[in-house]
Order: sequence, then structure tokens, then C-alpha cells
Amino acid sequence: MKIKNPFFVKREYIYLADLMNLLNVKYSDKKKIKIENIQDLSDASKNDISFFNSLKYQKILKHSKAKYIITSAKYEDQVKLYSNPIIVKDVLKSVYSIIKIFYENSLNDAVDLNVSNPNKEIFNNVTFGKNVLLGKNVKIGKNTLIGHNTIIESNVVLGSNCIIGNNILIKNSIIGNDVRILDGSVIGKKGFGFLPNQNKNVRYPHIGMVIIEDNVEIGSNNTIDRGSISNTYIGKNSFLDNQVHIAHNVRIGKNCIITGQVGLAGSCVVGDFVQIGGQAGISGHLKIGNNVKIGGGSGVIKDIPENTNVMGYPAKNIRSFLKKSKNGR
Amino acid sequence: MKIKNPFFVKREYIYLADLMNLLNVKYSDKKKIKIENIQDLSDASKNDISFFNSLKYQKILKHSKAKYIITSAKYEDQVKLYSNPIIVKDVLKSVYSIIKIFYENSLNDAVDLNVSNPNKEIFNNVTFGKNVLLGKNVKIGKNTLIGHNTIIESNVVLGSNCIIGNNILIKNSIIGNDVRILDGSVIGKKGFGFLPNQNKNVRYPHIGMVIIEDNVEIGSNNTIDRGSISNTYIGKNSFLDNQVHIAHNVRIGKNCIITGQVGLAGSCVVGDFVQIGGQAGISGHLKIGNNVKIGGGSGVIKDIPENTNVMGYPAKNIRSFLKKSKNGR
Amino acid sequence: MKIKNPFFVKREYIYLADLMNLLNVKYSDKKKIKIENIQDLSDASKNDISFFNSLKYQKILKHSKAKYIITSAKYEDQVKLYSNPIIVKDVLKSVYSIIKIFYENSLNDAVDLNVSNPNKEIFNNVTFGKNVLLGKNVKIGKNTLIGHNTIIESNVVLGSNCIIGNNILIKNSIIGNDVRILDGSVIGKKGFGFLPNQNKNVRYPHIGMVIIEDNVEIGSNNTIDRGSISNTYIGKNSFLDNQVHIAHNVRIGKNCIITGQVGLAGSCVVGDFVQIGGQAGISGHLKIGNNVKIGGGSGVIKDIPENTNVMGYPAKNIRSFLKKSKNGR
Repeated sequence: MKIKNPFFVKREYIYLADLMNLLNVKYSDKKKIKIENIQDLSDASKNDISFFNSLKYQKILKHSKAKYIITSAKYEDQVKLYSNPIIVKDVLKSVYSIIKIFYENSLNDAVDLNVSNPNKEIFNNVTFGKNVLLGKNVKIGKNTLIGHNTIIESNVVLGSNCIIGNNILIKNSIIGNDVRILDGSVIGKKGFGFLPNQNKNVRYPHIGMVIIEDNVEIGSNNTIDRGSISNTYIGKNSFLDNQVHIAHNVRIGKNCIITGQVGLAGSCVVGDFVQIGGQAGISGHLKIGNNVKIGGGSGVIKDIPENTNVMGYPAKNIRSFLKKSKNGR
Repeated sequence: MKIKNPFFVKREYIYLADLMNLLNVKYSDKKKIKIENIQDLSDASKNDISFFNSLKYQKILKHSKAKYIITSAKYEDQVKLYSNPIIVKDVLKSVYSIIKIFYENSLNDAVDLNVSNPNKEIFNNVTFGKNVLLGKNVKIGKNTLIGHNTIIESNVVLGSNCIIGNNILIKNSIIGNDVRILDGSVIGKKGFGFLPNQNKNVRYPHIGMVIIEDNVEIGSNNTIDRGSISNTYIGKNSFLDNQVHIAHNVRIGKNCIITGQVGLAGSCVVGDFVQIGGQAGISGHLKIGNNVKIGGGSGVIKDIPENTNVMGYPAKNIRSFLKKSKNGR
Repeated sequence: MKIKNPFFVKREYIYLADLMNLLNVKYSDKKKIKIENIQDLSDASKNDISFFNSLKYQKILKHSKAKYIITSAKYEDQVKLYSNPIIVKDVLKSVYSIIKIFYENSLNDAVDLNVSNPNKEIFNNVTFGKNVLLGKNVKIGKNTLIGHNTIIESNVVLGSNCIIGNNILIKNSIIGNDVRILDGSVIGKKGFGFLPNQNKNVRYPHIGMVIIEDNVEIGSNNTIDRGSISNTYIGKNSFLDNQVHIAHNVRIGKNCIITGQVGLAGSCVVGDFVQIGGQAGISGHLKIGNNVKIGGGSGVIKDIPENTNVMGYPAKNIRSFLKKSKNGR
């Protein structure tokens, strides 16, 4: 699914030579090569630059279309097999500096001051509560209802037949049809990502979106952060309970059931038909297979293969967890 | 405690024959029997229909006044001992279809569009902050204070001497005297209950209320869901800290102390004088006795008898938890 | 760092004899000794009264400047070594009764009814969203931005170059420069402290503040309670993710990274450069040293020395946790 990101204005292209110069990498470019974007390995097209910073993503590297890949010296040989490595000292820092060049307003992430009370006439059968604030160019499908005091920032897309509750903030999000979002949730704010620095941490750009597919339900007081470079996804017909926290770049499949106070750390990937019990947590960058059941309160710290039931901290096969806890009494 | 539910309009009665027809159960009714409501086993009166779907509720079944009880074939003999079983394939689905007949607006659970700024003159010494929105027929006792941007939906009852903070949403709730609810909490929204379905989950009706007794304190950013068929209760003089999540049908006794980020799953019953440490979780349908102390971070997955101190995940006797963790270092 | 508390009006002094009388302690005072404040052991000056109620604070007792110290009979000898003990039956109750005398409005902790839309002219280059409510005497530095629907109560101090999001409540707080607070957070409400009582718990006064230093970031839907007698601190350049709960009197050092859904219980002290993984919890009154790393989901129930990596519940050395959990599979 390729959805155009309407939230951040991208430069059409930048000359490779200019990027190399920015990264302090020696390079002479007689061909005037144009780079069109910076994207993660799986989303990158053949005129894009990407980056490789962990062996976890080796498989994806193999199939990436990116022509140039920023990496560190230790991965040079790896990357050479599939693409052209650009060797830098600090991969993440380099990536952020390139994002900032491509997306000039990417660090401008505060409060949308363009909001105002809705001009109801331009919408087709949309119901607005009191004190609703809409940004510029918000699209809302028919029969959708927006609750009181809710703020929807510029360029957000909302499908039809949605019910958006009260006191909600939505930004940087593309939302399907028949979606419900309950009171007090915050959708699409930037993720918790920055480069630590003794005097002043450097917040890095978050140019991703939150994509919510049809029939999803999001409970009350949830926080769903948008992606940094790629997007945060919630798949079709997945339901989230109250006080759930979904970090940046998380991808949740279809028909998942995520119970109250669950937390999913950055970039974890959850399959279809996954059930997660209350207060469970999943560490960053993990992969949870289809049809997995994770017991309430579990702490998942490694990948879980599909069709598995796990529980505990760290989460393990549910039978061994229950047996062990019985013996331990 | 029997409190009339003012939030959902109930039909006065439905003929048993019509209900049987709806459930596709063969039945001929010469007596024109009238059924007055559908309620859970303990709340049902003698002209009500109820349901039995788990051996956990065998004791309650024994004392239920319900004349007809929807159940599945495997529990037929059980139910026959005390009442008239109505055998269906899918108990929950049948129950929801009957609720929808009794309560025509039971799925209408979005945003109260009848709210407006309060007409202060009709209240006796009630103080309102800025931008307060009140639904129709809200009752508020004297000397109560409602904070800024707070929304109180139609038919809510609030006692006297209450302090309701800012940015709060209250719906489907009956609240006693001297209650404090702090900023950002969401009280009375529907619970996280639905019938999973591959294409589109079926949300089921939540016709219960939240009942909050006198002297209760609810912290900031809490979520307290109303009951599905029965109610969610918070007993007298119980105090809840911040970011607590109380699911549908939970019953909390008197004088409980529930610390920050605790989560109680659906239908669990907590006795009086229970103390629950921060971030602890209790699974659904469990019974926690009086005077129980549950240590912070615990995960409770079975009933806890009264006067017990537990800790750990799964929670066990606190002495064995601390001893084991000492040995394990 | 000594910051004057502008939120609670203090009596200039009270005669020691009057305090003794209040506490039912026999005492004759020919010198007309004036007591200027009640403070905790470390903050007390030589004309202040303080209190000692746990051996945990023995070291601090040794260096306290307080001339009079409320304590119970069992600590009398201890206190005598350094100061003048005042022996009472219930230390906390006595302390609260004295606070109430010094700070007459200390229990008045509801909703600031003095707020109104900002008079933008009196601020130097401050940007306000829609429906912002400001209390009296709020100070805001230049180039600061306040989001929509946000409430800032009377006497709050906000530095320059801050970004305060939408739907936020800030009270009883002193906030530095370059601070970001994200949407839906509640900063500075009273802590979860009270004297349990069968008929009606007695809420005790919270006269402390929240002090947030420069360059701090606070995520969405956080709750940061103010101190009871001393203050709650967030040190320079520390970053908090979403749904974090910080209880009263907590002190967080510089350059800390606190991930989503973490909870810190009352009065715990966290050093500099501490990293806390998602959903971890720290019990009350603990001390976490500098450079400690606490794994996600951990439950910390005792002090952690500096430069240590811990994980698990209860949290222990991370290597022994991972080894044990491997064997346990």
C-alpha cells in the first residue's frame, strides 16, 4: 500500500554530489545523479537513498531497490553485495541530516495554528460537536461524526462512517472508513526518537504518518505515534482497548485484539489475528507472527513465531510458564 | 443496591414467544408470557430472562430468580435444576440480539450531541468552569464544582460537594456525594467487548452504568468503562491514583486503595479494604477477597482469598515471592 | 536550587508554643520562639520544624538544620543526637495539621476559577492556540507556544522557547526554557497521598511544586504530580515518552530517558543519565544511581547502585536475569 504523504513537503530531488558533500564523503559526480528521496530499505525506489545499520535487516537489504545505502564501515562488504554503500561514522546522524534537506519542515512539529471551527457546508453530511477545530485541507468522508473539543490538524484524511470521540487530537494521519477513535486519544504525534546529547538532546525528524485501516477501533486515552521515516500502521478490523501505547513505525496486522494498557515499542511488527492481553509489552524491532496469543502482563523480548501462545516475563510458551509458576508456589 | 438506569430506554415487556422466535427456538406459548428484561443471573427478577455460559457462575445460578435462562446444550442439565433453559448455539450472540430488542438505542454509543453550556440558574449552588458542556437532564447536587472543558452527558447524576476536574468526560454514570474526579479521566464509555468477526467485528451493546459511591477519588487520565449488562461499581471511600484502567462490569468494594497504572480486566470483583500497588493487573472474572494486598507490578491470574498478601507474576504469597527472588539472584 | 513557591501563601511564623499546643505536647515557652516553616529534613532551615519517621532518612537527619523535629517515641534517642525531638503518636497526622496552620489554602486544590483567555499584549512574543485558559499572574518567556484548549493555572512560570501542546493542564509548576510538553498531559496536580480512614479518607495537603528544568521533553498523556512537602523535579535535558506517571516528590536527574508507560512511585530519587525501558516501575522511596539502565517491564523494589544494568521483576542484574530466563525455558 503506497499512500502519498501530504504532511511534509519534499524537495523533488537533490544531487548525489550535494548529499555526499553534506556527509563529508569524498565523491566526484560527473553524471549529475539525482536522488529523489530518503526511505527505509523496503520502501526505497531505485532513485532513492536508504540506510543499513543492523544485521536484523539483512533480508530486507537483499531485496531493497535503493541505489545508495548509508552504512558504517563494518557493514560495507554486506551492503556492497546488493547496492552502493556510502560509508559514514554515524549512520543515524547522517540519515537525519539528509531528511532535513529533503523535508525542510520536518522538524516543525508543534501545534497546528491553522485550525479553526469547521465550515460545515464544505463537508458531505458530517456531524460536528461543539468547539471542534479543523486544520486546513482536512478531508472527511460522509456520515462521519467528530466529537466535542476534538482537534484534527491540517491535511488529515478521515473516511466515511467514522465516529471520532471527544477531546481527541489527530495529526499526520490517514484514516479509513468505519473507524472509531475514543475520547482523549492522541494520534500521530512524533515518536520518542532523538540523538542523546549531554547538553541538549537532538530531536530527529518524524516524517512518517499513522495509517489506520477500515473498521479499526481505538480506545480512550491511547497514544499512537507516527513513524519516523516509514509509517505506523493499524490493520483492518483490529481493535485497541484503553490506554494503549503504540510507538513509531509499529505495524499491526488485521483482526488483532489489543487489550488495555498494552505497549508496543518502536518498529515492532505484529501479524494478523494476534491477541495481546492487558498490560503486556513488546520490545522494539520484534516480529510477532500471525495468530499469536500473548498473555496479559507478558514482556516479549524476542520474536514470536506464528500460531504460538506465550506468557510471562520474558514471555515463553504458555504451558511452561504456567507449569513453572505452579512448581514455584 | 438497585438503581434505575436512566441511560437506555427499555421496552416494558416482550412476549416470550417473540424472543424464542428471534432465537430460532421452537416454542408454542398459549399463556402469552411476558418477559420484562434481560439481566445477569444475580440481578434478574422473576419475570426476566438471563443467561449461563460458564461453570464459574454455578453458585449464582443456584440463587438466580430468572425464570428463563439462555444456555448451551452442555449446560442444559445444570440449568434445569433451577430454572427453564433455553438452548441456543451461541449464547453471547443470542444475549446481544435480545438486548437489542429490549433496548433499541443500546448500540447508539457515540457522542452526546445534546450538550450545551450549562444554564446555571437551574442548579443549586453549582460552580461551572469555562466551556463546560452538559447534556440534557443532568442532575448535580449542591456545592459541586465542574472544571473547565469538562463534558457531562445526558442523564448523568452527580451528587453534592463533588469536585470534577478539567477536560473530563462523564457518561452513563451515577455518582455519589463528595466524589473527586481528576483531570483527563474518561468515565462511563462502553467496554472493550465485541464478537470477533473476520470482516468486521460486531460491537455488542453496553447498557450498564458506572456507579461511583460517596467519598471516592478518581485520579487523572483514568478510564472507567461502564458495564455491558450489569454495572461497574466503585465502592464508598475507595481511592484510585492516576492512569488506572477499570474495565466493564468490575466491582470494587469499599475503602480500597488502587495505585497508579493499575488495570482491572472485565468483570473482576474486588472486596473491601483491598490495596493494589502500582502497575499491578488483575485478569478478568477473578474474585479478590477483603483486606487483600497486591504488590506493585503483580499479575493476578487466579482468585485471591481474603486477608492475603500477594506479589509477583503470576501473583503468589508475598513471602514465597520475596524468598524465591532472593535465592534467584 | 531554592525556588520560592508562589502557589501557597505561608504564614510568616507561628509560635512554637502554639504548635505544641496543637499537637497536644506539654511545653512552656518563655522565650516566645518563632517557627517559620515546616519542611522536610534536607530543606529545613534553622528556624523550621521538620519530621523523622523512618530509618531510611537517618543520614539526612544527621545533616538537617531543623531545630525541632516531630518524631515518634521509638526514634527519640536518634533525633536527640542532632536536634530537639517533639514526640507525638502519629507523625504524619501531626505534620499535616501543622502544614494546614502554616498554609491556610493548602487543601484548596480543585480547579482554578481565575482562568480566562489570555491578554496577549502583556506577553513578549508568545503564541497562543484557540481556547487557551490562563490563570492570574502566569509568567511566560518569549517565543513560547501554548496549544489549543490548554489550561495554565495561576502563578505557573513557563520559560522561553517552550512548546506546550494541546489539551494540557499545568498547575503548581515552575518550568524552564526550551521545554516541550505534549498533548493531554496533566502536570502539577496533587499526589496520591492521604490518611486512610474507614468513613472518609483524609486527603493531606500537597504544598510542593513540579520543577521542570531546561530542555526537558514530556510526552503525551503523562501525569506528573507535585510534591507534598518538598517538590517533584525533572532534571535538565531528561526526556519522557508517553503515558508516563511520576508520583509526588520524585526527583529525576539530568539526561535521563524514560520510555512509555513507566511509573515512578512517590519520593523515589533517580540519578543522572538513567535509562528506563517501557512499562518499568520503581517503588516508592528508592534511590537509583547515576548511569543505571533498567530494562523494559522491570519492577524495581530496592535501591540500584550507579553504573548498573538491571532487568526483571524484581529487577536484578541483567545478565543473571537473561541467563535464568534462558534456563527456565
